Amino acid sequence: MANVQNSPTLEVDLNALTHNYKLLRSKSRKNNCAAVVKANAYGLGVAGVAPALYESGCRTFFVATLEEAVELKKIFAAHRMKPEAVYVFHGVRKGQKNDFLAHDIIPVINDYGQFRYWHNSGPYALHVDTGMSRLGFNMEEIKDIEPTANLQLVLSHLACANEKNNPKNKEQLSLFKKVLAHFPRTPASLANSSGIFLGKDYHFDLLRPGCSLYGISPNTSLPNPMKNIVNLSAPVLQYRTAEKRQTVGYGASATVRKGTVLATVELGYADGFLRLLSNKAHGYVGDMRVPLIGRVSMDMLIFDVSEVPARLRTPDMRITLIGRQQPVDILAKAARTIGYEVFTRIGARVKRVYSEKNQA
Amino acid sequence: MANVQNSPTLEVDLNALTHNYKLLRSKSRKNNCAAVVKANAYGLGVAGVAPALYESGCRTFFVATLEEAVELKKIFAAHRMKPEAVYVFHGVRKGQKNDFLAHDIIPVINDYGQFRYWHNSGPYALHVDTGMSRLGFNMEEIKDIEPTANLQLVLSHLACANEKNNPKNKEQLSLFKKVLAHFPRTPASLANSSGIFLGKDYHFDLLRPGCSLYGISPNTSLPNPMKNIVNLSAPVLQYRTAEKRQTVGYGASATVRKGTVLATVELGYADGFLRLLSNKAHGYVGDMRVPLIGRVSMDMLIFDVSEVPARLRTPDMRITLIGRQQPVDILAKAARTIGYEVFTRIGARVKRVYSEKNQA
Repeated sequence: MANVQNSPTLEVDLNALTHNYKLLRSKSRKNNCAAVVKANAYGLGVAGVAPALYESGCRTFFVATLEEAVELKKIFAAHRMKPEAVYVFHGVRKGQKNDFLAHDIIPVINDYGQFRYWHNSGPYALHVDTGMSRLGFNMEEIKDIEPTANLQLVLSHLACANEKNNPKNKEQLSLFKKVLAHFPRTPASLANSSGIFLGKDYHFDLLRPGCSLYGISPNTSLPNPMKNIVNLSAPVLQYRTAEKRQTVGYGASATVRKGTVLATVELGYADGFLRLLSNKAHGYVGDMRVPLIGRVSMDMLIFDVSEVPARLRTPDMRITLIGRQQPVDILAKAARTIGYEVFTRIGARVKRVYSEKNQA
Repeated sequence: MANVQNSPTLEVDLNALTHNYKLLRSKSRKNNCAAVVKANAYGLGVAGVAPALYESGCRTFFVATLEEAVELKKIFAAHRMKPEAVYVFHGVRKGQKNDFLAHDIIPVINDYGQFRYWHNSGPYALHVDTGMSRLGFNMEEIKDIEPTANLQLVLSHLACANEKNNPKNKEQLSLFKKVLAHFPRTPASLANSSGIFLGKDYHFDLLRPGCSLYGISPNTSLPNPMKNIVNLSAPVLQYRTAEKRQTVGYGASATVRKGTVLATVELGYADGFLRLLSNKAHGYVGDMRVPLIGRVSMDMLIFDVSEVPARLRTPDMRITLIGRQQPVDILAKAARTIGYEVFTRIGARVKRVYSEKNQA
């Protein structure tokens, strides 16, 4: 089969991932930091990411669904790794009890129905809604829940933590403290990636970052303290020198002059390069910036590589879409979205490649 | 594990797919119609879609890459189906020759390098660029290519076929006819889905629709002649009645009044529901339209279901995102993109389910 050199590839630097994990943990009041690895570790590939986080010292993991948790437990088993806890944010549904128990997976209980179904069966977390209106008990309901021996953790989720001065943060913090008065001896968790940077008041007993492990900035207005950990690149399928002034791509939305050198690259919106970036993104050849020309196709992008020295325009040349030259947050902003969406949309045709763990 | 009832699910109606295939083929001058099944059959799942197309009479298939072609051949082998030709649009790279030959896969040759590497080895198609500036020989180069016995097909690709009156269509048609004068005995193919509806002048020997097989409209200004073939739906994770006027979701970007009934649903942007739809999309409960409230999360959406009768708001209720009530083109337009991108981004956590083939 085609080797990685000839495929669109997402390289994940596990040393940089470890750096990010340790940086986040170092902020913690209690040196206790979980990792959120839902949605295939935010698209980066949970089979490569989770063991590296474990080796970095992480022992508590969060995913969204039972299926993800089962997959994660299998990955750890294959590495003979024994995490202390794998939590499922979406909780437990009727019919899933045996699967949770068989795989030693812990549901995050979000409402009475889940509570009644599960609380005598095994360990669980309680999720209280302090301002997302999404999942979790509301403030009134939680008063009727009596803590039992199976209760491992009380958690809530911040809605605006990436905006440091948003008053909603302190409001949610205050409500969460009220909740904890009802569970004085239960460990508590509030801070996602952004929450970690709101200060130690928000840390409680367990941090649970997701995006910032993967290099996404935890806040919208300050410099990003995290390391970029990825390089998304794709090979050139074909070079073309325009024979005349001519249009490029679907809808003939771009025009290039005679002599322009175009490189057609094997990556498109089916691979997660957002179509909204048509005619307004750049790639990189090394440190040279090359403009995207025309619309994003399903399987291809076209770049103007006229400024790249001819000796570099070989069949082996690759164009980088996300990397140290262009962090995910920059590309996401151009596509009117956030780095999380860009990462989670990177498709199945893109090979995930992981740097050597023993370089850490 | 969780059954399908409890998962986000993409149902594909194979009878409607067959209807679309036969409708497109019926337009053909020569009753010869291939199918483009690249990018996992535009996200709908090639393992379900390709055998149904074969049963509908399709014998020629196009994919983007060698990997996709190998997967497709394995699917057909498992069904004891024998397609006449599986073409790879991106052509053949150095080092791939044996894989193409071993699996009986035909490259679409896009340039001299590929031509020299392959043309004595096995069957191939030639791709000529008549106005995309993306892949394929240019008009000058093709004159130097002498047809050989291995040449199966000459093809080109339309850039603006979805705009019926765009003068670029006739320009490309005229150039393609010039190309064919050089290959008078070779079968030819020009029409993608949209090209089929430009009239029989564009049909030549083989149609090769993609998007319209899957229900996407072939043109931007006329009614869609294709049947919707999908239903994308997700289960409710939790209901919540607002205790007071309160904000919803990340960034507190939406506010609901006291008493509003919210349903949090298990589908998010990691599953392909574009984040740009935040606060401006709808779902359906049966035929009842329910507004999306707040931002799209990675794994969840929140809908206002206050207008849905209480007796329907059960733990088993599902909300439809794409279906007969809301075809993919409508949702795509709201997200400033096209149906192709919406389909191809439907994620791996969404179960693909296929209707019974023997109902056809």
